[in-house]
Amino acid sequence: MNHVAFIPQARTLMGPGPSDVHPEVLTAMARPTIGHLDPQFIQLMDDLKRKLQWAFQTKNTLTLPVSAPGSAGMEACFANLVSPGDKVLVCQNGVFGGRMAENVTRLGGELILLQSDWGRAIDPEHVASMLKAHPDTKIVAFVHAETSTGVCSDAKAICDIAAAAGCLTIVDCVTSLGGIPVALDDWGADAAYSGSQKCLSCAPGLSPLSMSDRAIEVIKNRTVPVASWFLDMNLVMGYWGANTTRAYHHTAPINALYGLHQSLVLLEQEGLEAAWRRHMHHHMGLRAGLEAMGLTFVVPEEERLPQLNLVSVPEGVDEARVRQRLLNEFNLEIGAGLGVFAGKVWRIGLMGYASRRENVLLCVSALESVLADMGAPITQGQALSATMSALA
Amino acid sequence: MNHVAFIPQARTLMGPGPSDVHPEVLTAMARPTIGHLDPQFIQLMDDLKRKLQWAFQTKNTLTLPVSAPGSAGMEACFANLVSPGDKVLVCQNGVFGGRMAENVTRLGGELILLQSDWGRAIDPEHVASMLKAHPDTKIVAFVHAETSTGVCSDAKAICDIAAAAGCLTIVDCVTSLGGIPVALDDWGADAAYSGSQKCLSCAPGLSPLSMSDRAIEVIKNRTVPVASWFLDMNLVMGYWGANTTRAYHHTAPINALYGLHQSLVLLEQEGLEAAWRRHMHHHMGLRAGLEAMGLTFVVPEEERLPQLNLVSVPEGVDEARVRQRLLNEFNLEIGAGLGVFAGKVWRIGLMGYASRRENVLLCVSALESVLADMGAPITQGQALSATMSALA
Repeated sequence: MNHVAFIPQARTLMGPGPSDVHPEVLTAMARPTIGHLDPQFIQLMDDLKRKLQWAFQTKNTLTLPVSAPGSAGMEACFANLVSPGDKVLVCQNGVFGGRMAENVTRLGGELILLQSDWGRAIDPEHVASMLKAHPDTKIVAFVHAETSTGVCSDAKAICDIAAAAGCLTIVDCVTSLGGIPVALDDWGADAAYSGSQKCLSCAPGLSPLSMSDRAIEVIKNRTVPVASWFLDMNLVMGYWGANTTRAYHHTAPINALYGLHQSLVLLEQEGLEAAWRRHMHHHMGLRAGLEAMGLTFVVPEEERLPQLNLVSVPEGVDEARVRQRLLNEFNLEIGAGLGVFAGKVWRIGLMGYASRRENVLLCVSALESVLADMGAPITQGQALSATMSALA
Repeated sequence: MNHVAFIPQARTLMGPGPSDVHPEVLTAMARPTIGHLDPQFIQLMDDLKRKLQWAFQTKNTLTLPVSAPGSAGMEACFANLVSPGDKVLVCQNGVFGGRMAENVTRLGGELILLQSDWGRAIDPEHVASMLKAHPDTKIVAFVHAETSTGVCSDAKAICDIAAAAGCLTIVDCVTSLGGIPVALDDWGADAAYSGSQKCLSCAPGLSPLSMSDRAIEVIKNRTVPVASWFLDMNLVMGYWGANTTRAYHHTAPINALYGLHQSLVLLEQEGLEAAWRRHMHHHMGLRAGLEAMGLTFVVPEEERLPQLNLVSVPEGVDEARVRQRLLNEFNLEIGAGLGVFAGKVWRIGLMGYASRRENVLLCVSALESVLADMGAPITQGQALSATMSALA
């Protein structure tokens, strides 16, 4: 055991998250810790709520950051809204739909699983027919932006169908918030959660969450208490709620919340629409470079997430070796495939502060250099100029 | 909504936590974020495990920081070890015993509640007689250092009695770890959790946790899955476990873990025994000053925590006004009483980096000045010299 500080070699984070954290967010996290009931901190909490409402495009009163990573935000939604015996339709087209299904069964809900192809969006018509077959379904849950596959599903269409069937909706916005339009009120979504470490340019560890008044009613009228004391929104609201006297629930992660606040300040300064345009712009640059090399995208264009790119590994290439060389020789992290895509794809993230010109140029150049060196069947010498044209 | 950074006025944190965070911990949290599967990060995790084993004085393989505050650490212990129908004896002598009881009932356990006076230690004989009356009890849970009352219970004695009755033990070490001796293997404790923001000088948000092999066996042999996916140790171990290939579970709070690592580096540099002595030394200084003013301690001397001091509010004094003035005029935070002690006591913390000479001197001087100005019945003019003598 060595009693020395850990000084990490910095990386460029272009995997599925965490993505590059903005330097001002890092600075914010190092500010002096204050108490979780300090009047200054209460003001910060109020401001955080307003900023998250803005980012989620919602007026939901219950909008706050859960004091734990995105998986806990997911669990907060299910643990509060699912009572034992409730029928829950989970739409699965990747890893995170599977995690939702796990939540339902562990909480004693009755799982109805809509299984859909990985790498493709959820078909709203499929949701409609499943709900017709299971008319007593209480909740429809789906992933807006599947981090495991880089696919965007039509949140508004699915929420509309669920609402027409009298169901609540739970929407995973972990990878979408800040990168592509998220509009909870327009969608009519009842519960949504995100993560701090994707398109918000913040460090991992927090999960922004929002719930509609309809969801709050369901929680307040539960007959079986929420299994999790830590995530029980009845209690969490007492600390994050509108009252000026905040009831102590748990000790908030003060410095992490400084970071999230700063990331939302940066997002405000940029503007939501500008941030969405930036994510699309750099995606187009990356795409131009990769396609100039002859690499192909897995997801059909109209279902693609600009912030998370699923790229096919060329025939005969050891994909893990490529990632290892990018990390060792370029300090560049890209992601591996998961589930059915394991070993077959790379996941290249352009999320938050990682979605910028220099990252696209680095990734295209480094990938071309490594693939060429490994004798992969790619077209050489055109990628960088194609990227620069697309980014011009 | 103002789009400006949040720059907090720094405080001296002498409440029940968060306590002052060491400047080097703040610096560590601002280091560049790297991926949660980066080889550098895997090394950091291994080092963190070793350091936590050392701090907890245990060889337990399952020793890791839960990615959420202490309340989630508590919940991790109960959610993993309690199966529906299990009889759990919870010893309550303050707020956190009550939270344990909440966990048991929410998880479907059968609660046996040992209610004991707030402000006093749990009597091991009382535990023994309860276990005699409930011979089929599976788990005994208690708080080593009650943050709500400043009381230390005899962990070894209670663990011995529980073990003799064939019970597992869950021990809350939130406020004890790093401040007074914690020795899981010597106690024979099966599960223990702590918090980063007390005597470890770190920011809030993480919960160091350790479980014995006996506890792991119980978790592995559960017939009902753990209700919480996020806290299921079967899965968490896959990421934090001994394998070199780490299975992705959730995204670790990278920068918060940098902070915890640095706080443990500082604890190693100081030494555990030296840290315990430092906490006792500054407690004696605070005590000398407060007693010189005529203030009294609530908890009997042999049950007192040096790091958390429960001090009676003098007759006729508005305790909330005193705390408010300390905060506004001295940037000094002390804590209020909870539960049966609400309005009657202050909780003065001397935890981690907050347990140092200048804090004791500030607190004694500031409290004397405010109380004198408010016309409280105290002896004036002797507190500071009494403190300095005790600290000499």
